[in-house]
Amino acid sequence: MRESDLLDLIARTSATAVAGFPGVLVGPGDDCAVVAPGGSALLLKVDQLIEGRHFAPGTPLELVARKAIARAVSDIAAMAGTPFASLAAAVFPHAYPQADADRLCLLLHDAARRWGCPTVGGDVASFAPGDHPLTLSITVLGGVHPTRGAVLRSGVRPGDAIYVTGSIGGSFASGRHLTFEPRLAEGAALAATLGDDLHAMMDVSDGLGRDAGRLAAASRVRIELDTASIPLNADVLDTVRAASDGEDYELLFAVAADAAVPGVIASGTPCTRIGRAIAGSGCVLRLADGREIDAIGLGWDHA
Amino acid sequence: MRESDLLDLIARTSATAVAGFPGVLVGPGDDCAVVAPGGSALLLKVDQLIEGRHFAPGTPLELVARKAIARAVSDIAAMAGTPFASLAAAVFPHAYPQADADRLCLLLHDAARRWGCPTVGGDVASFAPGDHPLTLSITVLGGVHPTRGAVLRSGVRPGDAIYVTGSIGGSFASGRHLTFEPRLAEGAALAATLGDDLHAMMDVSDGLGRDAGRLAAASRVRIELDTASIPLNADVLDTVRAASDGEDYELLFAVAADAAVPGVIASGTPCTRIGRAIAGSGCVLRLADGREIDAIGLGWDHA
Repeated sequence: MRESDLLDLIARTSATAVAGFPGVLVGPGDDCAVVAPGGSALLLKVDQLIEGRHFAPGTPLELVARKAIARAVSDIAAMAGTPFASLAAAVFPHAYPQADADRLCLLLHDAARRWGCPTVGGDVASFAPGDHPLTLSITVLGGVHPTRGAVLRSGVRPGDAIYVTGSIGGSFASGRHLTFEPRLAEGAALAATLGDDLHAMMDVSDGLGRDAGRLAAASRVRIELDTASIPLNADVLDTVRAASDGEDYELLFAVAADAAVPGVIASGTPCTRIGRAIAGSGCVLRLADGREIDAIGLGWDHA
Repeated sequence: MRESDLLDLIARTSATAVAGFPGVLVGPGDDCAVVAPGGSALLLKVDQLIEGRHFAPGTPLELVARKAIARAVSDIAAMAGTPFASLAAAVFPHAYPQADADRLCLLLHDAARRWGCPTVGGDVASFAPGDHPLTLSITVLGGVHPTRGAVLRSGVRPGDAIYVTGSIGGSFASGRHLTFEPRLAEGAALAATLGDDLHAMMDVSDGLGRDAGRLAAASRVRIELDTASIPLNADVLDTVRAASDGEDYELLFAVAADAAVPGVIASGTPCTRIGRAIAGSGCVLRLADGREIDAIGLGWDHA
């Protein structure tokens, strides 16, 4: 089973899944769902963290709890939203030490409070005997940006400029995948500063190349990224490899061609222009010598 | 690790966890959390379903999907709420057949739509190689009852009469744990009919005895159940055993002593008076010969 195949199925069937429910504004396939049960719109996101896949056995519980919450919060940031509550569900390995289970629950509370979304409920269970990994499922609810509303993946227009916050690559090798700061302030600042010129946004979790491909597909445009422009982390040498690495949790966004994007936003996060959208389909990385690499095939399958 | 010990910890620490967040009306410890990010209150619930614990390997996927959604919907019913959206997260066994994964996703959509809460988002991952069980995590959001609001566990008062819907016992042996109908219509009808005389409510998932003990603890009262009054399913002979069985998903509720509770509600579901609340603490089952059994020690630890 490939995660990406299943996500494709879910995206293909999502229109049917939510048909007849007018309170569902955005169904499966974007960074968050958007629902409006009463007057105001809500962002909803669930994400899972599995020992051995998203963190190595032996990772300090503080970092496990932090990453579990931060991953889902990053998706709220990608819509320019503000988290306000979370739910945490855990399945523990059989015979998991009670003291560790207690600590993990308290650490999840701490991490959730840090980003403004206290854990208001949850579920705990343990696996039957066997060598099963710790498995966490985190739901975060958020409010949409008060003036710009939810920033979707589907708003890129031909002619738009494509930007990324911060720098990318090497998240796993460096350990940054455990310590990244979700770009909440940056997402909100972009929405406030750019308003309707901020056409689309998502977070980069499966690799810049693959995620830019998803942005292009959601917006039915073609995206070309200039390899030489992509900002790399200091410990990363190869741009194509960096664009294949997962878990950067930077914001990838599209703006009107004439929009004045600040070079630095929030508390000093750079914004770098890395490409453009044109009419067409697909997504490529353009190398310095003019060759193009298909970006869709890059990236990292989480599952 | 015992699920019940961890739930106790979570309940003990929940006041701290949500302190300083005025939008959180009810934190961990009730059937659902209640949050009010804007004007209107929302119910939130996450629940997990694990192969080998909550369903046997080989259970038809239709019933797995149905139970996964129905369990969380039952908690919305227990607050007298109405489900409006859901999120579904799955971790698949390694090398799980793609066709089964696809089918399960579609079946989750079907089940969620059935109870009015279309699946608006989700996450899929797969375990690393090894013999790991299919694991589902379902979040359901609901609205509170329009006139009565959310019906909590903590509202029982000394002198209240204690009722249960339907009949209990033998859910696993009979397979009813896979086919039960969440008591949405019943919860809403009780709230509409009884109004503020409906003091407290919860669903019975871990056994009538243990859950009545939780209702008593949440309300700081003592609850006495008359064994002879407890309505049993036709295939169940032993009342104490039935009160220990889990997964009835009936509603257990407390009303003012003089409230006129209909004998039958919604589409023919009986309501049976099974006991009373008095000042004090604890919960007992009173046998026909006058002996009392501590109810708290009965019931079924899910994890």
